[in-house]
Amino acid sequence: MATPAYDQLLERYAEIKDLEGAQSILGWDQEVMMPAGGGAARAHSMASLAGVLHAKRTAPELRKLLGSLKRGRAKLKPRERRSLELAQHAVDKASAIPARLATEIAHAESAGLEAWRAAREARDVRGFVPALERMVGLKREVAALRGKPGKLYDPLLDEFEPGATMAEIDPLLTELKELTVPLVKRVVASGVKPNMKPFVGRFKVDAQRAFAREICLAMGIDPERSRMDLSTHPFCGGVAPDDVRMTSRYDPRDTRGGLFGAIHEAGHGLYEQGLDARRARTPLGGAISSAVHESQSRLWENNVGRGKPFWTYWARKLRAAHPQLKGLSVDKIVAAANEMRPSLIRVEADELTYNLHIVLRYEIERDLIQGELEVRELRDRWNTNMSEMLGVTPRHDTEGVLQDIHWAMGLFGYFPTYSLGNLYAAQFMATARKQIRGLDGRIAKGDMEPLREWLRVNIHRHDQVYTAGQLVKRVTGAPLSVDAFRTYITAKVDALYH
Amino acid sequence: MATPAYDQLLERYAEIKDLEGAQSILGWDQEVMMPAGGGAARAHSMASLAGVLHAKRTAPELRKLLGSLKRGRAKLKPRERRSLELAQHAVDKASAIPARLATEIAHAESAGLEAWRAAREARDVRGFVPALERMVGLKREVAALRGKPGKLYDPLLDEFEPGATMAEIDPLLTELKELTVPLVKRVVASGVKPNMKPFVGRFKVDAQRAFAREICLAMGIDPERSRMDLSTHPFCGGVAPDDVRMTSRYDPRDTRGGLFGAIHEAGHGLYEQGLDARRARTPLGGAISSAVHESQSRLWENNVGRGKPFWTYWARKLRAAHPQLKGLSVDKIVAAANEMRPSLIRVEADELTYNLHIVLRYEIERDLIQGELEVRELRDRWNTNMSEMLGVTPRHDTEGVLQDIHWAMGLFGYFPTYSLGNLYAAQFMATARKQIRGLDGRIAKGDMEPLREWLRVNIHRHDQVYTAGQLVKRVTGAPLSVDAFRTYITAKVDALYH
Repeated sequence: MATPAYDQLLERYAEIKDLEGAQSILGWDQEVMMPAGGGAARAHSMASLAGVLHAKRTAPELRKLLGSLKRGRAKLKPRERRSLELAQHAVDKASAIPARLATEIAHAESAGLEAWRAAREARDVRGFVPALERMVGLKREVAALRGKPGKLYDPLLDEFEPGATMAEIDPLLTELKELTVPLVKRVVASGVKPNMKPFVGRFKVDAQRAFAREICLAMGIDPERSRMDLSTHPFCGGVAPDDVRMTSRYDPRDTRGGLFGAIHEAGHGLYEQGLDARRARTPLGGAISSAVHESQSRLWENNVGRGKPFWTYWARKLRAAHPQLKGLSVDKIVAAANEMRPSLIRVEADELTYNLHIVLRYEIERDLIQGELEVRELRDRWNTNMSEMLGVTPRHDTEGVLQDIHWAMGLFGYFPTYSLGNLYAAQFMATARKQIRGLDGRIAKGDMEPLREWLRVNIHRHDQVYTAGQLVKRVTGAPLSVDAFRTYITAKVDALYH
Repeated sequence: MATPAYDQLLERYAEIKDLEGAQSILGWDQEVMMPAGGGAARAHSMASLAGVLHAKRTAPELRKLLGSLKRGRAKLKPRERRSLELAQHAVDKASAIPARLATEIAHAESAGLEAWRAAREARDVRGFVPALERMVGLKREVAALRGKPGKLYDPLLDEFEPGATMAEIDPLLTELKELTVPLVKRVVASGVKPNMKPFVGRFKVDAQRAFAREICLAMGIDPERSRMDLSTHPFCGGVAPDDVRMTSRYDPRDTRGGLFGAIHEAGHGLYEQGLDARRARTPLGGAISSAVHESQSRLWENNVGRGKPFWTYWARKLRAAHPQLKGLSVDKIVAAANEMRPSLIRVEADELTYNLHIVLRYEIERDLIQGELEVRELRDRWNTNMSEMLGVTPRHDTEGVLQDIHWAMGLFGYFPTYSLGNLYAAQFMATARKQIRGLDGRIAKGDMEPLREWLRVNIHRHDQVYTAGQLVKRVTGAPLSVDAFRTYITAKVDALYH
């Protein structure tokens, strides 16, 4: 039964969510609309808004309220208890970092980005080492405030994947690595090199964009509650569920980034649009975790968008969008959409090798935070692991250890969620295929509604009522494992690289 | 000399300005970018942000700080004193309305808008009378808290035109009316009806937009620090001076709204871009008043953009933008740009009759607030005055007293600033013409830089260092009067309607 204290919690939370919504739109505007000159003023506005939010999230009245609710837990319904748990988690996260440390991190981030950019310019990680050492030190301090000794990486992982621990993800990612390395070797040994004509050449950007938009709408994106724009780095933001903002970018010489990027972001967008509006301003509102979010984008991008059923319908429209593709077969498009080969750059990697890029980063950042690797050993470790796992070696650090912005910004604990997302995606998709009669046939007729609806009913509409662990068991009957992905990716390699 | 208390004031003010900047971008997004579904979430975000700002503006610590600074006034430099005065004014404004009254006004506004829309639908003001009575009553309450008995309109005017009073603007607007009524009669009696072909017909929207953009850039709008977009109601917003956002809208059958609207908003935009970035986060930062802002838009739209020098240069480009205008003379364009005729709708009125629409609204809203007119007498008063001043009578209230949204939203005190803006524009322009050698010749060569620079140096860059009254004396050597406008508009009527 709701109590006056619980109502007060909801009221405070609604204000926090409202201000987070403001923050999100300002962030979107900054990437998509803001003129170059607006940067300084925006930085001030964002900082002041962040300050207000921090004060609201750590307000003594809120903590008192949570304390009193916890003492009266017995009076609350299960969902209210879950709500309380989420609110407490958010307060703990916000309160863990003292103002002094938060300021130091903000400075380390600016300094880190600057050093990272300069080091990239010089193609040499050494200029970035001192700044990164400082950042790792600060992140270890943060972790020590929230975590257990010997498990410093866990609280950082928890920022993006609530409740996840090294103990849980280590075996999964190790198994994923052991599955993938020999598969990559098989791909290379097969000597198969798909003809890339379906996606590489000269393509009109307007036609690319219209084609991608048509697919996103067919996936079920509601245009009355969303926008699709352009930005340098594609993302999905806005305010769920009724003001979702997706972006993509289109390259006239290679359509894959724009097309699969748009499908990917629309996968995120469907999750956001599928959340329950009635919960949006409560602690239960919002996506569960980065990995579950990523499962939705990857499922559409890879499991659906690179599949034969999908192209059975969309090949005709692709050919219509780009007349030079006249006569191209579905099989040729599918082969090109699934080009696999070891490469140096994560964001350009295919579905198979991508996970090795992630495992490499995960192991490195885990060891840095755990104190088992020194920043100055970074380049050697990176290059050795690249060569062992993927058989390629960077010619310089800009195509090696300097390629991602994450560590410069202090984002430790984020990388593994990409691969966990792939595992969730495969496991959800395998279940959907069992539960939806004739799913592939429907997709091959251009009908993606049954899948979207299955995802909405089973995943999206529950917001954070369940943890990621509870959800995957509830939906698929089993905890997260590599099994479904193994079956899926092995079949793909068998079919295309033999 | 700056004191620690003064530094604290600056710090608090910077935060307030940062959050106001966030509010402004969210407002822009709402009008220009937001998908239809985003309305509810945006209303929540805006309300919560407004709540935060209200708390910051009325914080007891801020009031205490201002009190202590006032006691130590002697130690402050003149600009710091002005800064203090502006900060105190803002605090007084924010604090004047108790929470209970603010809530009632918010409700009256929602109810007022709903009743106004329904009454417009029915074309009958009577359905709107009770809601408007409630709003007038609440606004009188607000005014009573801030103003002097018998002068209730003054504090409402002060919201938009700081320091202005009825005693000051009454004679100006009366003189403006007495100047205009006979001029309108002369225009009508002349029988002159310009051929509207330069602006009315069939025009490509893309070409209209590109032409307007070229003019705005030539005026000196810096594209690195601004955007120009489309919206239903053109406006200029964003964050001054480095992220200014202007909008316009283009009608394929009549190019005047889009073209002169874009020039008008670019006039506002130049003011915003000309403000001093170093003051942006201080109490001195920002535009002086609504009327001074409007003077900048009107000066460019009317005094420049409808003038013969302007079209001497731009006629060629207008003809190039719309090939059907081939061979059209500068004089024909100028005649059409200055079409004058009595009409019913303010936003479609020409430069001459526009001021009568304003005087009519000013006299009515002043009398409503002063308690000298009852809301139920509104329609009669409106229709009688329209007929007396402009010689036209609405067929129904939607083209009469219900045409503007202002009163339904509780915006009393805003209307007169439009006409005051016209007076300021004429007075500034007359001075500029004296001080810039060969100004019209420069404009006739497409060179608008000397005028823009003169406005920047004399008006824009001073932010709120001077009051409107101080500024106009400083720049033109005289207080605001009807004289310059009389000379300007009489010459125009003489030239075109004889």
